[in-house]
Amino acid sequence: YRNRHPLWVTLWCDEESGLTGSSGFIGKLGPAELARTRPDGEALGDKIRKIGGRPEALAHYRHEPGSIAGYVELHIEQGGTLDREGIPIGIVEGIVGIRSWEVTITGFANHAGTTAMGERKNALLAAAELTLAVDRIVRAKPGRQVGTVGRLQVKPGAQNVVPGEAVLSIEIRDLSMDKLEAIWREIEAEGNAIMERRGTTWKTGARPPNVAAPATDAVRAVIAKSAESLGLRTRSLPSGAGHDAQNLARIGPMGMIFVPSVGGISHAPTEYTRPEAVSNGVNVLLQTILRLDQGG
Amino acid sequence: YRNRHPLWVTLWCDEESGLTGSSGFIGKLGPAELARTRPDGEALGDKIRKIGGRPEALAHYRHEPGSIAGYVELHIEQGGTLDREGIPIGIVEGIVGIRSWEVTITGFANHAGTTAMGERKNALLAAAELTLAVDRIVRAKPGRQVGTVGRLQVKPGAQNVVPGEAVLSIEIRDLSMDKLEAIWREIEAEGNAIMERRGTTWKTGARPPNVAAPATDAVRAVIAKSAESLGLRTRSLPSGAGHDAQNLARIGPMGMIFVPSVGGISHAPTEYTRPEAVSNGVNVLLQTILRLDQGG
Repeated sequence: YRNRHPLWVTLWCDEESGLTGSSGFIGKLGPAELARTRPDGEALGDKIRKIGGRPEALAHYRHEPGSIAGYVELHIEQGGTLDREGIPIGIVEGIVGIRSWEVTITGFANHAGTTAMGERKNALLAAAELTLAVDRIVRAKPGRQVGTVGRLQVKPGAQNVVPGEAVLSIEIRDLSMDKLEAIWREIEAEGNAIMERRGTTWKTGARPPNVAAPATDAVRAVIAKSAESLGLRTRSLPSGAGHDAQNLARIGPMGMIFVPSVGGISHAPTEYTRPEAVSNGVNVLLQTILRLDQGG
Repeated sequence: YRNRHPLWVTLWCDEESGLTGSSGFIGKLGPAELARTRPDGEALGDKIRKIGGRPEALAHYRHEPGSIAGYVELHIEQGGTLDREGIPIGIVEGIVGIRSWEVTITGFANHAGTTAMGERKNALLAAAELTLAVDRIVRAKPGRQVGTVGRLQVKPGAQNVVPGEAVLSIEIRDLSMDKLEAIWREIEAEGNAIMERRGTTWKTGARPPNVAAPATDAVRAVIAKSAESLGLRTRSLPSGAGHDAQNLARIGPMGMIFVPSVGGISHAPTEYTRPEAVSNGVNVLLQTILRLDQGG
């Protein structure tokens, strides 16, 4: 087989903590980003220099939009849908957007023995109601959006003190940034009502959002055709986790193929992908690339 | 004035972290208790030895039941009832009993982006429901009982991970140990229902209870008469906090006098007791002791 387009096989570095390799590929690691101090106190540029690299070269490396004909990534599904339904190939609809907030609820810390129930401004009760509201609001809408309070700290955090402060994270994910905005507005309205009722106040600090990266329709169609030609059933689903594909989607057509992970487990020692799942995925990837090379 | 009983004015040491002085007075600091390692890693006996004392002497020190004719303690109310109602003297009904539990809720930690809402076993949602249930159950009964979740830790505690475990404290206080038992049974039943619904499990470890110490009716009557003789209005109320009086109640008649603390604040830099509140309390204490000395 003689290909019409050049074929690059890439192994991106540091997918887990910031998609660093693919970010550099599309020119997102400029001088400012390389100089920014990371949580461990060191800048990425300094780390690269330390192992003998030249961050100056990376700072101006960049693939422009339109410079690639297409990008296809094969991955395990980091959820249990394909495994549970016995479907060998997932066609990714896109990589979800993420919006998140750091929330601080302020009540009044007081002695848990001497402060009557009616006199309390208990920040944890407000936080508990808010946590349940996030879950309820996210579930109430049709679709595959998710919402999570993953972190909650209570201060002062003693058995015999009415909690005066609660700090928590709210994170919501969906393919539609508009849906995320609508969900957040509901959470915000419900949160205001809770604080009013509980005699507490809250502050919400938004973190920079991850913008959703939809997969390209034409690439999805080619993946579907390729799987069909191999007699493999498919279903479409979003990717709830981030992937390098979301960076590549900024400069060209993008598609992702998922294969089942046993029990939907990932990022854990018990993660396991059956050999036939791997070969199914590789064959669909191969057929997809051949078809894309020939124009779809 | 020539008193009929010997009068002891006591300043108990270490009221705040365990009523140590009054515990020693009634013989609760035996050899085992003196040798027990404290949270800071050192035994009380070793601390006493370090500053030149003889823990051996303390180990056999003891005042037997019946050895005192009465004990009266003056204290600020560590709540806001007297201050809010403008009543100068509180007659303590007794010192509440305390029951408390260390609760561990186990769910399943999973990726907050890829785990669909319906597939989660979220320990924090169960903890939030339980926290609200404790508050609701405690408030539902008439009376001055209190109940608090003061501590809550979420694991792993990351924005993008569905909480797999939550560890929290439950504490309830009332003058009636029976009422505390009834409240706990309701909390336990409600907790079981929550865990069932959420697909989580829980373990509850009871801490040693503090048994309620009712004030002696005869001493309460003398306090009331003394306040009346001074033209000071009174109201009866429980003490939600612990006091040395709960130890002395084990060996003889006990009573406590409360005076208002501005705003009900205690254990804080803004705690303040007005000079007239202090002199009211001292005068009632004096009249109470004179009357008790004369047999009521």
